[in-house]
Amino acid sequence: MRLLYLNPNSTEAMTQSMVAAAQAAAPWAEISGWTNVDGPPAIQGAADGAAAVPGLQAMLPEARAFGADALVIGCFDDTGLAEIRSAAHCPVIGIGQAAYHMAALLGQRFSVVTTLPVSVPVIRGNIDSYGFALNCVSVRASGLSVLEVEAGGSAVLARLGEEIVQAGTEGAQSVVLGCAGMAPLRSALAANTPVPLVDGVAAAARLASAMVQD
Amino acid sequence: MRLLYLNPNSTEAMTQSMVAAAQAAAPWAEISGWTNVDGPPAIQGAADGAAAVPGLQAMLPEARAFGADALVIGCFDDTGLAEIRSAAHCPVIGIGQAAYHMAALLGQRFSVVTTLPVSVPVIRGNIDSYGFALNCVSVRASGLSVLEVEAGGSAVLARLGEEIVQAGTEGAQSVVLGCAGMAPLRSALAANTPVPLVDGVAAAARLASAMVQD
Amino acid sequence: MRLLYLNPNSTEAMTQSMVAAAQAAAPWAEISGWTNVDGPPAIQGAADGAAAVPGLQAMLPEARAFGADALVIGCFDDTGLAEIRSAAHCPVIGIGQAAYHMAALLGQRFSVVTTLPVSVPVIRGNIDSYGFALNCVSVRASGLSVLEVEAGGSAVLARLGEEIVQAGTEGAQSVVLGCAGMAPLRSALAANTPVPLVDGVAAAARLASAMVQD
Amino acid sequence: MRLLYLNPNSTEAMTQSMVAAAQAAAPWAEISGWTNVDGPPAIQGAADGAAAVPGLQAMLPEARAFGADALVIGCFDDTGLAEIRSAAHCPVIGIGQAAYHMAALLGQRFSVVTTLPVSVPVIRGNIDSYGFALNCVSVRASGLSVLEVEAGGSAVLARLGEEIVQAGTEGAQSVVLGCAGMAPLRSALAANTPVPLVDGVAAAARLASAMVQD
Amino acid sequence: MRLLYLNPNSTEAMTQSMVAAAQAAAPWAEISGWTNVDGPPAIQGAADGAAAVPGLQAMLPEARAFGADALVIGCFDDTGLAEIRSAAHCPVIGIGQAAYHMAALLGQRFSVVTTLPVSVPVIRGNIDSYGFALNCVSVRASGLSVLEVEAGGSAVLARLGEEIVQAGTEGAQSVVLGCAGMAPLRSALAANTPVPLVDGVAAAARLASAMVQD
Amino acid sequence: MRLLYLNPNSTEAMTQSMVAAAQAAAPWAEISGWTNVDGPPAIQGAADGAAAVPGLQAMLPEARAFGADALVIGCFDDTGLAEIRSAAHCPVIGIGQAAYHMAALLGQRFSVVTTLPVSVPVIRGNIDSYGFALNCVSVRASGLSVLEVEAGGSAVLARLGEEIVQAGTEGAQSVVLGCAGMAPLRSALAANTPVPLVDGVAAAARLASAMVQD
Repeated sequence: MRLLYLNPNSTEAMTQSMVAAAQAAAPWAEISGWTNVDGPPAIQGAADGAAAVPGLQAMLPEARAFGADALVIGCFDDTGLAEIRSAAHCPVIGIGQAAYHMAALLGQRFSVVTTLPVSVPVIRGNIDSYGFALNCVSVRASGLSVLEVEAGGSAVLARLGEEIVQAGTEGAQSVVLGCAGMAPLRSALAANTPVPLVDGVAAAARLASAMVQD
Repeated sequence: MRLLYLNPNSTEAMTQSMVAAAQAAAPWAEISGWTNVDGPPAIQGAADGAAAVPGLQAMLPEARAFGADALVIGCFDDTGLAEIRSAAHCPVIGIGQAAYHMAALLGQRFSVVTTLPVSVPVIRGNIDSYGFALNCVSVRASGLSVLEVEAGGSAVLARLGEEIVQAGTEGAQSVVLGCAGMAPLRSALAANTPVPLVDGVAAAARLASAMVQD
Repeated sequence: MRLLYLNPNSTEAMTQSMVAAAQAAAPWAEISGWTNVDGPPAIQGAADGAAAVPGLQAMLPEARAFGADALVIGCFDDTGLAEIRSAAHCPVIGIGQAAYHMAALLGQRFSVVTTLPVSVPVIRGNIDSYGFALNCVSVRASGLSVLEVEAGGSAVLARLGEEIVQAGTEGAQSVVLGCAGMAPLRSALAANTPVPLVDGVAAAARLASAMVQD
Repeated sequence: MRLLYLNPNSTEAMTQSMVAAAQAAAPWAEISGWTNVDGPPAIQGAADGAAAVPGLQAMLPEARAFGADALVIGCFDDTGLAEIRSAAHCPVIGIGQAAYHMAALLGQRFSVVTTLPVSVPVIRGNIDSYGFALNCVSVRASGLSVLEVEAGGSAVLARLGEEIVQAGTEGAQSVVLGCAGMAPLRSALAANTPVPLVDGVAAAARLASAMVQD
Repeated sequence: MRLLYLNPNSTEAMTQSMVAAAQAAAPWAEISGWTNVDGPPAIQGAADGAAAVPGLQAMLPEARAFGADALVIGCFDDTGLAEIRSAAHCPVIGIGQAAYHMAALLGQRFSVVTTLPVSVPVIRGNIDSYGFALNCVSVRASGLSVLEVEAGGSAVLARLGEEIVQAGTEGAQSVVLGCAGMAPLRSALAANTPVPLVDGVAAAARLASAMVQD
Repeated sequence: MRLLYLNPNSTEAMTQSMVAAAQAAAPWAEISGWTNVDGPPAIQGAADGAAAVPGLQAMLPEARAFGADALVIGCFDDTGLAEIRSAAHCPVIGIGQAAYHMAALLGQRFSVVTTLPVSVPVIRGNIDSYGFALNCVSVRASGLSVLEVEAGGSAVLARLGEEIVQAGTEGAQSVVLGCAGMAPLRSALAANTPVPLVDGVAAAARLASAMVQD
């Protein structure tokens, strides 16, 4: 099975770490990742997302030729999900969508911990449109930019850990990591926080596998 | 005030009739219309809509240079509304969005009469995401294609009239004309049906005027 | 075009400042304002609102004779909207309703900053019943009475400014001014806060214009 | 315990039959009924309802002096419920509200069978605003006017019976009688239809008793 | 009329205090209470609730033989409500369900003050599934266990009082006591807090009476 | 990976055909199926479902000892899902839940074709509580009992085919097979109907695999 991650932003390092996290989550699959070289360096808010859509659409013919069995939109905003799904030759899932479905399948009310406040309305809108408004306890902005998260380090881990703990005190039964760049931090965060974590990059790899040929 | 209609499809005749209907509805405004020459000839279903988005996005720099005060997406599916809004220099409204808001402002539960069944899920999804699920009595497909509607004629009027009457018997207090191509047919339809009609092309001209500088 | 504001409360000064704000927002229209001399001096909570309805209803025959093209209910609670709409000879809009629709048309998640806690459930109920529950981030009471707001002054501006800033940190993309008496304060508030403001008195003037003859 | 039914319409015979049905349902209570002599002869649609509100409000001082323990709004539209509740000295319930709560307490998805199509949007709006949109299978208009229902007779019973049967085939687990005038017909209808019936006049008598001093 | 409270947990003292509170609320009824000897000592979270269901189901044949006119599930989580309702010979109500309906009938937006955080998702899920999501301001965990609440005392009253006051400042118009063990504390709490309280044990006694033979 | 299907009903033949369908859908997994010998022969309506829960709960210790990695509740009603999930040692999914999530992940508005009308309210309630009310076009009862479906044959295929076609004309983009007993009929139905089908038995096998260790 061939799963192809399409990274809407132009930061190749994020594509690489996403592929590594996905491969670890779905060892049975052949995981590839392509970077949208025409996209912004990070997707922060609706305008960045919109700017990234044409570049994603332009990848579709090649994705078909490549023989992808499923496509994963590798940004937590599920950038262009409707547009890509309507034109793709195979099933498409977003990493945000994957994370919410996984939490819901597990019966958990969840919070999202994300990067900047500008992303909160986009994420809220997605959660509402998928039908999970009542499952969502809160969407919390950490104040960290996507590229700060991508860089990682102890201050970043501490900041995200605080938000995860706060979400737990609000009643979240799990916390969704609200940025593709948090995937590599999952185990370090899990070691220091009491709330189960859901990483959309991994969830998408597993759910995309489930969607193929159902 | 300069309102610019962006027709996502490539049928120039629809752009022209849309501009005429809008000008009649908002005589105080200067109405222009641009056709997406890279779009499909008609938007029928999600795939057509997605294919039209990059062409719409590509018009934005010129729209800014043109000095548009507001943009209207001239397709009842509100093609690319989120993407265009996030990148535009001025307010943006879709003709579907405009029609639902107008009916809601008037306190009416409405039905939509549209073209082919493939458009129904797109329209339903929009209505839900705008918060009007409970205001909507039904979304009815007439079975007529966009280009058949555009061509008009007595058989088309009769077919649409039947659906409008049916919507009234279901409890609709107004009927939204669910295709840009129905705008020129509004007065003929109104003369033969007992339910108030809402045309999104006209509603958008008036509501876009309201949005400018609020 | 003749727009008639009906102030449900008996405070004539509020009617006057409302008319001025509306006229500035819709210079093409002829704006008038009538005061409900049988109403309470301010509408604070559901009981005040209910007490004001018969006085509003009693104005309708004269409003028809006056030749109003649209009526605006000049209280943020949209006092008696359903009752007035069902009996009026022309379209009716409330200033709360207008503000929520305007924010929604602009694609913004909004918060409301209002006067006393007693008004919060009324406002929440209206937002829910119009379908905007998911668009609303919060409804915040400033603790100021309607007449304190009407009196204005630097302490009032400071208090409202604090609430607007708080709403922004909660993720509101715009803040709705939740009292007719805040209309004259809009520009002073806008000068000192980072979040776009929506004033229902102005929004109603523009949207009522849009509703006439659609 | 003293329960006072306020009939929003001016048809005294309906008040009397309502009191009889309520007394049978709550033999422990002292049931009275007052007729809104300033109301329309029947409440059919939103405009009739609005016209009845001031007359209802005018009864409140006398209702307090009378020592009512609870007020029941004796029209299935719950005419003026919010306004009356906000000004009354005691709990207030509407017969529509009572019927929906009773069906929901019994865990049943329900349909409503009412009089004319003009009442359907009012009823739908109430059901939505109380939170029971998902409990409601359908709201069916029989085409009979309120006064035809009040007159009764075999043709009326047959017409209502057909609608009840249809509601059952749509999946309704109970059928709410959607007009105060149907209360006296309940046992005849129940004898000839397979679906459990809920009468709001009786439900309100029992639920109003429950609300007193809780 | 014979109302039978089924306590899902095995703590006989809670059954006894529940029966006393119910009897005071419904002096016309004959109230009994049975303890689920196979249940956990307290229901704290979903797992405890699930473990209690078979013991509740096993009581049903005896409840029928006993001639109960209605059953009340005596745990605020409405433990096994769907299962018990589907198999019982008579109407069934849960004390949580009763409390939410009572607040809604009274037109109040409510908050719930409960015991431990583990109960919050269960309560939220119930409120959502009954249709009261928009009526609910917040569900607040006091941090007290069920058995601490049952033991009572001034520290417990103070802790609960603080949460009630906080709920009021959030805009709650009434506070639902979110544990059967709070029923005996109602009058002490009411004496020291400014927000009306709703006790599900009492509400269930009154609403169950209303449900019998409607 | 060891997936264990728990059949809430006592019909061993259904367990066997379910295991076969699941094994075909997830060849990488070791699939087992256990029959609830204490359950009713078929689950038709809420009462049958409730009666089956204790038997399911009683299987949990053995399921843990067996080393199941995930449990699947093998009835389309998701019998006892909340109860089993709260007590299980591993993730739990229902075949109804799996089917709705699969359709939603694929971006499809779906209809359900099920057996008898008595099952419709149970299915509707589940869809609502999972958040998919707006994704669901209709729930259609075929009038066939579970055991008639299980027996299969050309008349059964024809009857189900008619309902599938009808769902398509209503706007369903996929049809969910609303009974575990339809799993073996999937390919025959798919060959004769134009709408994509979703089988919950297969979907659960794939989604349960995705849930393990996420």
